[in-house]
Amino acid sequence: MTSDPVRLGVAGLGRAFMLTLPAFQADPRIRLVAAAAPRAESRAAFERDFGGTGYASVDELASDPNVEAIYVATPHQMHADHVIAALKGGKHVLVDKPLSVSMEDAERMVAAAEESGGHLIVGPSHSFDAPVALARRLIDSGEFGALRMVQAFNYTDFLYRPRRPEELRTEEGGGVLFSQGIHQIDMVRLLCGGQAETLFAMTGNWDPDRPTEGAYSALLSFAGGAFATLTYSGYAHFDSDIWMDDIGELGAPKPSGGYGAARSALIGLDAESEAKLKTTRTFGQGKAPAKATHHEHFGPVIAICDRADLRLTPGGVEIFADTERRFVEAPVGPVPRQEVIDALYGAVRQGRAPAQSGHWGLASLEVCHAILTSAETGAPVRLGRQCGLNQEEIEHE
Amino acid sequence: MTSDPVRLGVAGLGRAFMLTLPAFQADPRIRLVAAAAPRAESRAAFERDFGGTGYASVDELASDPNVEAIYVATPHQMHADHVIAALKGGKHVLVDKPLSVSMEDAERMVAAAEESGGHLIVGPSHSFDAPVALARRLIDSGEFGALRMVQAFNYTDFLYRPRRPEELRTEEGGGVLFSQGIHQIDMVRLLCGGQAETLFAMTGNWDPDRPTEGAYSALLSFAGGAFATLTYSGYAHFDSDIWMDDIGELGAPKPSGGYGAARSALIGLDAESEAKLKTTRTFGQGKAPAKATHHEHFGPVIAICDRADLRLTPGGVEIFADTERRFVEAPVGPVPRQEVIDALYGAVRQGRAPAQSGHWGLASLEVCHAILTSAETGAPVRLGRQCGLNQEEIEHE
Ligand SMILES: NC(=O)c1ccc[n+]([C@@H]2O[C@H](COP(=O)([O-])OP(=O)(O)OC[C@H]3O[C@@H](n4cnc5c(N)ncnc54)[C@H](O)[C@@H]3O)[C@@H](O)[C@H]2O)c1
Ligand SMILES: NC(=O)c1ccc[n+]([C@@H]2O[C@H](COP(=O)([O-])OP(=O)(O)OC[C@H]3O[C@@H](n4cnc5c(N)ncnc54)[C@H](O)[C@@H]3O)[C@@H](O)[C@H]2O)c1
Repeated sequence: MTSDPVRLGVAGLGRAFMLTLPAFQADPRIRLVAAAAPRAESRAAFERDFGGTGYASVDELASDPNVEAIYVATPHQMHADHVIAALKGGKHVLVDKPLSVSMEDAERMVAAAEESGGHLIVGPSHSFDAPVALARRLIDSGEFGALRMVQAFNYTDFLYRPRRPEELRTEEGGGVLFSQGIHQIDMVRLLCGGQAETLFAMTGNWDPDRPTEGAYSALLSFAGGAFATLTYSGYAHFDSDIWMDDIGELGAPKPSGGYGAARSALIGLDAESEAKLKTTRTFGQGKAPAKATHHEHFGPVIAICDRADLRLTPGGVEIFADTERRFVEAPVGPVPRQEVIDALYGAVRQGRAPAQSGHWGLASLEVCHAILTSAETGAPVRLGRQCGLNQEEIEHE
Repeated sequence: MTSDPVRLGVAGLGRAFMLTLPAFQADPRIRLVAAAAPRAESRAAFERDFGGTGYASVDELASDPNVEAIYVATPHQMHADHVIAALKGGKHVLVDKPLSVSMEDAERMVAAAEESGGHLIVGPSHSFDAPVALARRLIDSGEFGALRMVQAFNYTDFLYRPRRPEELRTEEGGGVLFSQGIHQIDMVRLLCGGQAETLFAMTGNWDPDRPTEGAYSALLSFAGGAFATLTYSGYAHFDSDIWMDDIGELGAPKPSGGYGAARSALIGLDAESEAKLKTTRTFGQGKAPAKATHHEHFGPVIAICDRADLRLTPGGVEIFADTERRFVEAPVGPVPRQEVIDALYGAVRQGRAPAQSGHWGLASLEVCHAILTSAETGAPVRLGRQCGLNQEEIEHE
């Protein structure tokens, strides 16, 4: 299978691309052949590093006959245009989370994928993390009976990482819901089978200097009767990674010291300097993230089944059963995000529909919006655009 | 002040009494002078150990002129009769949580206390734990700005500890809500100022052999704008004490090994043998709990303020502020539950109204019922019988 790698184009050579790049580079199933980026230096760096073609626009990239699939890693609000251009160009698409900001855009993308016959995969997201897939397999095994309740929470410094201005405006997809909540929702939906039913939530928007949602808590019920609690704070105080073996979100040990670093780095910066600081963390400029020794993760997750609680860790799943407690390791591969390549390669070369399809991503986005709506109205929200798991895919993974 | 101890009578010499006894015994502000217990052996053990008078009924105890205050530690469903008898006898009352099972009983007790002029204190509960009071003082200091969000969760083996049959019937006050939820509610209300406004919740009743609520998750908003997430499971699988420095609920280090002990101890027992097993953990029979090295606690609690998150630990409060992280110790006294004696002595000898008054306990009970109601109806519940903090008391504590 390595004799026929997927010829991948990349739209957007920013932070997301830098984080997924190690997987593309290390995996023989992928060959990077082209990119679209507005900045000339980024295009030059891409051509230098991969020998492919750098385009100034996604439309040009989408017309390149050598490109089979496009990874869309541009800002949220551009996903719809770029994904639809790629699909219309006859490409398969891997679009980074969230699928889009508005539900209308999401519907348009799902329709475009259906029309074009191309695969649309939404990822990477933390629902691809190996311990999540392992927990899902353990649940599917039936050994522990029905899944009843999931609790997921995460306390990070998200709101104080350097941002583009629109990343702090909710209506443009800013705040923790669209960038972070979407991970948690994807993960929890995967564990609970996908079909969310009713949601109630409260949100926090507490820093007038960064006036967007920085925290939320939500209760969510699923078809089949399970329910989940999702809690998040990105206010850069408590860090729940102390309960994840001091392993950071990207699977690398947390550096000791440096408490408060995210806030400190922003002191005295105006919006423009802050956006500029963000670009120092992107492809061609930023340094690669620290070597991952563990899986990526999105904070503590406990899944309660009838005969065991499953605790997800950065190394696997700890099973607390009726009479015994044991740990099931999820072996760490040579590079992170291999599961995303599995999905992409599986779709493009093996015609295998991904679990995290366009409709899947639309359903997670619906939950994002429902959190905002419930918090605003004080009423529960009934979900109407959910979709279940593609069971086959999960078992293959 | 030690020259004039409160002359205390005890109604119910069971498990609760055994847990609070060390505080009564060690504190010079208390003298145990009488008790009511249906079982002759318990009365004999009491008379032998404390030289007081053992009565067969609470009515007799309530007529003893030597008794100034009565600690009511009988089963939930008897609290109302026993508390009202005590108040009518002119005594002050310390009633163990929950105040009662029904709201009607709770209202009757609060009215009886008002009528009699006696103090009614609801406790011990984990809202008395020193780290909770410390967190409240830190919030009140204003140093960290407004309180915004609280997350409290606890995973225990509660449902599999030996039980009387009615402790497994919700309508008689069984299940985790009335015995455990009430602790969490009390604690969270204390941190958030008491005035709960709206609640949404889901509950789990998953073991047909113990058909009562064993788990719940609730979202709760407060006057002033803070909100809280309360999650609990008593299904004896995951144990969240691993995130509380391996210190158990009663402040003692958890024994290592013994995973699954609670479930194992019940194997093959019918309801009668199980109730009998429970009596081996009561006064005169059970062995005293392991020596507490830390404060009692009720699982992880994170309180988010504008300029810091506070994490409650069994030793104090960890403060995660904007630029620094530090730990404030809550000194551990010679015996646990001293804060309960503070409240009792303060009320009886110093006329100081307790924070955990009858109305306070009624308000926490209202939240318990609201969790059951919301889970049943799928709708949010508006609370109407809440009460705020007696600010003075908290500052004295
Ligand atoms: N899965 C993850 O781990 C992860 C991490 C970060 C971001 N993301 C997602 O990736 C997306 C991008 O976020 P980011 O943090 O990388 O932002 P970023 O600003 O670092 O990168 C976006 C890139 O898109 C480029 N771009 C802008 N307009 C373009 C256009 N018309 N054509 C081509 N490129 C264009 C920008 O020059 C920039 O390099 C977001 O949707 C975000 O949610 C995912
Ligand atoms: N705060 C805590 O840490 C804590 C711990 C356990 C129980 N409790 C509370 O204490 C109360 C009792 O629970 P428990 O677990 O101790 O139960 P238990 O069964 O161990 O004790 C109840 C006692 O009341 C006695 N009793 C029954 N009828 C009586 C009567 N008419 N007059 C006098 N005594 C009578 C019983 O003989 C028994 O000894 C409950 O409300 C419970 O919520 C609190």
